[in-house]
Amino acid sequence: MSDTFDELKRLLARVADLDAAAAVLEWDQETYMPGGAATARAHQIATLRTLSHEYFTSDDVGTLLDKLEPETSGLDATSTEASLIRVAQRDFDRARKLPSTLVTEMAVAVSHAKNAWREARETNTYAIFAPYLARLIDLNVQKAEALGYAEQRYDALLDEYEPGMTTSTIETVFEALRERLVPIVQAIAAHPAPEDGFLYASYDTQKQWDFGMAVLRDLGYDFDRGRQDLSAHPFTTSFSIHDVRLTTRVAEHFFPTSLFGTIHEAGHGLYEQGIDPSLDRTPLADGTSLGMHESQSRLWENMVGRSRPFWQHYYAKLQQLFPDSLADVSLDTFYRGINKVAPSLIRVEADEVTYNLHIMLRFELEKDMIEGRVSIEDLPDLWNTRMEQYLGLRPDTNADGVLQDIHWSLGALGYFPTYALGNLMSAQLFDQARQDLPNLEDQIAAGQFDSLLHWLRTHIHHHGRKIEALDLLKQVTNEELSAEPWLAYIREKYSGIYASL
Amino acid sequence: MSDTFDELKRLLARVADLDAAAAVLEWDQETYMPGGAATARAHQIATLRTLSHEYFTSDDVGTLLDKLEPETSGLDATSTEASLIRVAQRDFDRARKLPSTLVTEMAVAVSHAKNAWREARETNTYAIFAPYLARLIDLNVQKAEALGYAEQRYDALLDEYEPGMTTSTIETVFEALRERLVPIVQAIAAHPAPEDGFLYASYDTQKQWDFGMAVLRDLGYDFDRGRQDLSAHPFTTSFSIHDVRLTTRVAEHFFPTSLFGTIHEAGHGLYEQGIDPSLDRTPLADGTSLGMHESQSRLWENMVGRSRPFWQHYYAKLQQLFPDSLADVSLDTFYRGINKVAPSLIRVEADEVTYNLHIMLRFELEKDMIEGRVSIEDLPDLWNTRMEQYLGLRPDTNADGVLQDIHWSLGALGYFPTYALGNLMSAQLFDQARQDLPNLEDQIAAGQFDSLLHWLRTHIHHHGRKIEALDLLKQVTNEELSAEPWLAYIREKYSGIYASL
Repeated sequence: MSDTFDELKRLLARVADLDAAAAVLEWDQETYMPGGAATARAHQIATLRTLSHEYFTSDDVGTLLDKLEPETSGLDATSTEASLIRVAQRDFDRARKLPSTLVTEMAVAVSHAKNAWREARETNTYAIFAPYLARLIDLNVQKAEALGYAEQRYDALLDEYEPGMTTSTIETVFEALRERLVPIVQAIAAHPAPEDGFLYASYDTQKQWDFGMAVLRDLGYDFDRGRQDLSAHPFTTSFSIHDVRLTTRVAEHFFPTSLFGTIHEAGHGLYEQGIDPSLDRTPLADGTSLGMHESQSRLWENMVGRSRPFWQHYYAKLQQLFPDSLADVSLDTFYRGINKVAPSLIRVEADEVTYNLHIMLRFELEKDMIEGRVSIEDLPDLWNTRMEQYLGLRPDTNADGVLQDIHWSLGALGYFPTYALGNLMSAQLFDQARQDLPNLEDQIAAGQFDSLLHWLRTHIHHHGRKIEALDLLKQVTNEELSAEPWLAYIREKYSGIYASL
Repeated sequence: MSDTFDELKRLLARVADLDAAAAVLEWDQETYMPGGAATARAHQIATLRTLSHEYFTSDDVGTLLDKLEPETSGLDATSTEASLIRVAQRDFDRARKLPSTLVTEMAVAVSHAKNAWREARETNTYAIFAPYLARLIDLNVQKAEALGYAEQRYDALLDEYEPGMTTSTIETVFEALRERLVPIVQAIAAHPAPEDGFLYASYDTQKQWDFGMAVLRDLGYDFDRGRQDLSAHPFTTSFSIHDVRLTTRVAEHFFPTSLFGTIHEAGHGLYEQGIDPSLDRTPLADGTSLGMHESQSRLWENMVGRSRPFWQHYYAKLQQLFPDSLADVSLDTFYRGINKVAPSLIRVEADEVTYNLHIMLRFELEKDMIEGRVSIEDLPDLWNTRMEQYLGLRPDTNADGVLQDIHWSLGALGYFPTYALGNLMSAQLFDQARQDLPNLEDQIAAGQFDSLLHWLRTHIHHHGRKIEALDLLKQVTNEELSAEPWLAYIREKYSGIYASL
């Protein structure tokens, strides 16, 4: 390619370095930073993010992209060069459409809203948060209008997290999902719940940590290009394809927290570690969408980590490690216990069956707010009514209802649906993997994950952001996005636990 | 002050944030970064350092400094405003005097020289390093000429690490020091060496770590604004006055490594934590010179940590912690063991008495190289001859001689003398502290360090870079830089260990 392209890569590498540095500072903030450093750190991160934004949206970048546009017509659209120019142009256009005054107003509103949200949740007083939420909705409406959209205003917000996805696609898929899922949840609720008290026994935290680290190694997570640390809230972050870090938390009296958190984050981490190294320091060195990212974490957490074959391999080891808590618990009891389904009020504690209903509720309310179809004042009631409809439970408090999630206080609307999209995609991808790898279950039961990882690397990870999520899904599975495979997976798995559903 | 001043502060804060971010990335590199990330991290740090340099040396900063210059005449020179403008101007002038081609050539030369030095040291082949050293000397000559100097070329290099210091001042002081120190070392060598075999017994590494952490707390190191981690080579780094971090290493079979390393770094860390918080995110938020910085680490390490009163307080605790290794070792034997003096070939392993001789040798050779008075080829012989003269030892290999230090391979000439200046200043300051705090020894013997720390905070730390090192020394002790107090300290202390000297 031309010198112009090299110059673009050089400018984008500088932006990537600044973003990576900000991410290191954020990682440090959540893991090792002393408390007294909070204000200084906020300044440092703000400086890095501001400079990154200034450089990326500079006229220099715009001019280079304009010059390169004619060159792309002769290129294979999936080539690194064409993809890089296309994705950089996309990000550039989005970033330039947002007036800097709006970006600043959003940042200020978020910093106030976060505090208001915390106080509102702690004191169970929705009225404290309501005016800040109203302000953030207003700013999100302005944002959507500035960005533009073809059909619905919500499309513009969604597009930030799930490029190429439309609100109407999600509506169609979620509609099909809800219709079939609500009866399944009701059927499960009618069965006696499996025993799971043993999960709340005492599990030495160091042994839990060591077990999780061993599992990470087995899964193929590369410790030469990553590490795991402790933090209050688990997350995955990447400073380079060669430096992808996970965090977890360990609860002495609830075994699933740490291990399944670790496997979930490993799914994110394996994605980032699997991106073609030649894409490092470019905008292509990232997951193609949040939904696709979540499909990887959910596939490893639920379809692998909570599967019977997985525990056929690991359960004896786990029993040896925790004889006091597990010696009298059979593999079957353990397997049923870690897959217990119970409608609950709190999303982050939900099992894999009911989880998507929590998401649908949020998606619907977000759309209504953005379209001005619901007043902020009525939101708590609407939330509670819909919870009852979907999950058969009504929160006693707003803290356990509309105030439970941090996302809205961060001004992040359009984010929630990606969690459910990830669940659906994970089933579509896992079906295809099973077709392509006929011995997959036996391999998992033998603690061998390399052919599954290789399959994911080749079909998903390697491409980074070169191919949009829905196109990639189609390319790999020959199918459009659909709730059917996930529903079939749920019916099959939970029929084995709760009898026929 | 004016809007111009505020604008300058804003630009300098951005530079400070970029430097802080680079320092976080460097800290991470030495503590937690996975090995595979090395190349990516090098890019990130280079980007941050380059941007910081570009912003700092920009015409914007120059214009603001020019505008502010007339305003300073009406200000108290020790005010924050006047100091900030003066120090920023000084740094700006230095940075602008260096042609960017020279900066780039130096960076390239260093990256090659570091590798050559490693290989040369490992294979004990000086010829591998010699041409790279010659190149770095040549570049340092160019650097000195670009920066300018009043008397000697070496002044220009020294000025980077020890602002305001001149080569001739150091020559005078070192001359006096060498004349008196060589006979002391010879006299000590004539005495039987104290027993110290117990220091090489087994010391549980976790217990060593815990003991070091407890001592750090006792000394007044603030863990809300800092932390200690492990690294291959101990260092102190600061990302803000509110985030000052130490590292140490722990050797199971040599007790002094970790604890005295920890106390040494604590000395640096206490300095950084003690700077007036209002100076944060400005060029004043740093130690005033490397020599003054080293005076703090040496004061705490040697005058406090290796003193008899210190161990009157701590030795019983240490014995309790390590009964297998220390139960039969008396306090007196322990105290003499940790203060054993023995001429040795390697600087970083030298005791406090012989250490300065290692420094003087390097200072003299550096000057000779910079003035072209010695050929690079003759350097090893010259080194060995002078080692014999000063310390009575001749290295068998260049790896144990001229190749032992990393500094020259980093292009850092003018740095070594600051280590010895630190030693000398530490004695001058400690003498003054003892005069001002008549109960100091009793306090140390009671494990109380707060009045000493308060004294150092008030007289040294608080000022940051507002006052140059020699002026500050004069202000605090009413004396010029001198070797006498340090020699008196050595004679007094070691007469108690080796009989009269």
